[in-house]
Amino acid sequence: MNLNIAVLAGDGIGPEVTAQSIKVLNAIASQFNHKFVFKNAVVGAIAIDQTGNPLPDETLEICKTTDAILFGAIGDPKYDNDPSAKVRPEQGLLKLRKELGLFANIRPVKAYETLIENSPLKRNIIEKTDISIYRELTGGIYFGKKQTSEDGNTASDLCEYSRFEIERITHLAFKAAQNRRKKLTLVDKANVLESSRLWRKVVTEISQQYEDVALDFLFVDNAAMQMILNPKQFDVILTENMFGDIISDEASVIGGSIGLLASASIGEKYVMFEPIHGSYPQAKGKGIANPLASILSAALLLEHFGLYDEAIVINKAVEDSLKYEITTEDLNKSENKISTDNVGDFITDYI
Amino acid sequence: MNLNIAVLAGDGIGPEVTAQSIKVLNAIASQFNHKFVFKNAVVGAIAIDQTGNPLPDETLEICKTTDAILFGAIGDPKYDNDPSAKVRPEQGLLKLRKELGLFANIRPVKAYETLIENSPLKRNIIEKTDISIYRELTGGIYFGKKQTSEDGNTASDLCEYSRFEIERITHLAFKAAQNRRKKLTLVDKANVLESSRLWRKVVTEISQQYEDVALDFLFVDNAAMQMILNPKQFDVILTENMFGDIISDEASVIGGSIGLLASASIGEKYVMFEPIHGSYPQAKGKGIANPLASILSAALLLEHFGLYDEAIVINKAVEDSLKYEITTEDLNKSENKISTDNVGDFITDYI
Ligand SMILES: CC(C)[C@H](C(=O)O)[C@@H](O)C(=O)O
Ligand SMILES: CC(C)[C@H](C(=O)O)[C@@H](O)C(=O)O
Repeated sequence: MNLNIAVLAGDGIGPEVTAQSIKVLNAIASQFNHKFVFKNAVVGAIAIDQTGNPLPDETLEICKTTDAILFGAIGDPKYDNDPSAKVRPEQGLLKLRKELGLFANIRPVKAYETLIENSPLKRNIIEKTDISIYRELTGGIYFGKKQTSEDGNTASDLCEYSRFEIERITHLAFKAAQNRRKKLTLVDKANVLESSRLWRKVVTEISQQYEDVALDFLFVDNAAMQMILNPKQFDVILTENMFGDIISDEASVIGGSIGLLASASIGEKYVMFEPIHGSYPQAKGKGIANPLASILSAALLLEHFGLYDEAIVINKAVEDSLKYEITTEDLNKSENKISTDNVGDFITDYI
Repeated sequence: MNLNIAVLAGDGIGPEVTAQSIKVLNAIASQFNHKFVFKNAVVGAIAIDQTGNPLPDETLEICKTTDAILFGAIGDPKYDNDPSAKVRPEQGLLKLRKELGLFANIRPVKAYETLIENSPLKRNIIEKTDISIYRELTGGIYFGKKQTSEDGNTASDLCEYSRFEIERITHLAFKAAQNRRKKLTLVDKANVLESSRLWRKVVTEISQQYEDVALDFLFVDNAAMQMILNPKQFDVILTENMFGDIISDEASVIGGSIGLLASASIGEKYVMFEPIHGSYPQAKGKGIANPLASILSAALLLEHFGLYDEAIVINKAVEDSLKYEITTEDLNKSENKISTDNVGDFITDYI
């Protein structure tokens, strides 16, 4: 298969972890006789530094003319504590999602047997947890009108949803549930928010078309609690943008490590794969960043194009790296110092 | 001391748990020679049933003319799944907070030694956790303009904050931190929200007046993860209304039981005390509802009026009830069925 892949490594540890995925994908290409062509483009803080724009037109163009995007991470502390900054790295990511119509972010949450003891949660709570979170990604308070009064003393953000935005991701989530344990939980705050009431209404209507799926509702505050008390109760979780951001990061504790969580962002035309972790600037350049989430994102990319055997090989390699503790220090209790690069090499050699 | 206390027992299990607190407060009054006068008033679904209004004027009047309010719980499922309901029980609570100017909700999060094994989190993670969450309670997306388009296909909620709203709770939170471990963490989403950037700006400015307190910032998604990975890192958490709702319910898992979490809502003129748990309608009338959070709310009320010895007695009684498992079934592994009432009687007798 021929695939053109846009590589947006981004900020912080983004470049170093993404470099491992490229190595891995190259190994897959030569083993399985594929041709993967990579096109690098800048996004985020590094793009601001180089061009003044967190998402240069050229980057967007490359994304639109390739088959898939492999994304690293975004964000730089120099912008976080400057409330008056006009451009911020995150705008690059948000604009990318919006321009490419990546309306659904899908995050699998699983308890890896080898990592179960790493979790702050007890084994009996998380064992066998298997959740798929469908987070709406191009609407809500992320993209609603933002205002600051002239005197700077009042600021606001609008959380807005239309029926159409809710419908398209809801269908995806119901279809996913049909192929899983046939349960869908809508997380909202319908006792307070008008937009949540629209979600509840639309999702209830659509549920008629998926009668084999059991639908239930949970207020987001309760969901944040239930995710820790009893994560096994969940199969597919569907939720709006901001709640999805919070709940899915929270759920990462179940996996034993955020360094293992990959996600897919999909739209009508484009697809993007990215680790859930952030740019982790404190770790940048030290060789300690865990590349597994990025490598697993590459595996999701292959699956998306039907290259299941290839994805399986990567997943097995990752499991072996966990088993033999060929892992960066976040997952490694031994004295051996294993670097980001070493992990990438191990996976590559395995393939 | 003479105290007039408005009792708003509300819905679901609200009345049965609040009844135990009244028993306990009466026992305190007779032991310590106080005079507590209770004035009952309706709020929530029960108030809608009786008057059509979730917060009748009479109830508001009683709240304004008493020294403190003891609140039960609010909410009824018959309103939750009806997106077109015009009146909802929760409006009663929200209006109460707004009308009384209860701008700060303070939620202590502690790992009770006797309950530590009950938590889904491992002992070493939660042991000695001691957090105080300051949640802004009368602003943000809860109270911003809500709109639904005429065709019903678009809905929105506005999240708005003014400098003044941020300032007053920020001062409270810094003062609390000064009396604790001198650390304050602002939880926001300043990389996306304009309102969060205003929070960050105002809180940073105010921090100059509290130089002995270390201030740091955490994005809400990361905070939701850190709360489980390493809750001990937190001392005082300050956050806006919606994030506070989510994070504090999530944090309840640390205590080993949401049935033990009390909260205080305070304003310039009025104060209200309430358990964090909801109306738990499935348990209503079964005698299985845990009254300890309500009883501990009564203890917070006494503390607020300087009745520390009295509060200590209640806290000790609660600890004993945990130690001897004189607790409702949520905390009780033995065969003995101990009812809501039995727990109330045990605490009362102890006093
Ligand atoms: C970087 C940030 C804007 C982003 C988000 O909030 O969506 C990140 O947290 C994520 O979840 O992908
Ligand atoms: C009942 C509901 C409106 C309320 C809230 O969201 O504030 C509750 O969850 C709480 O935390 O007190």
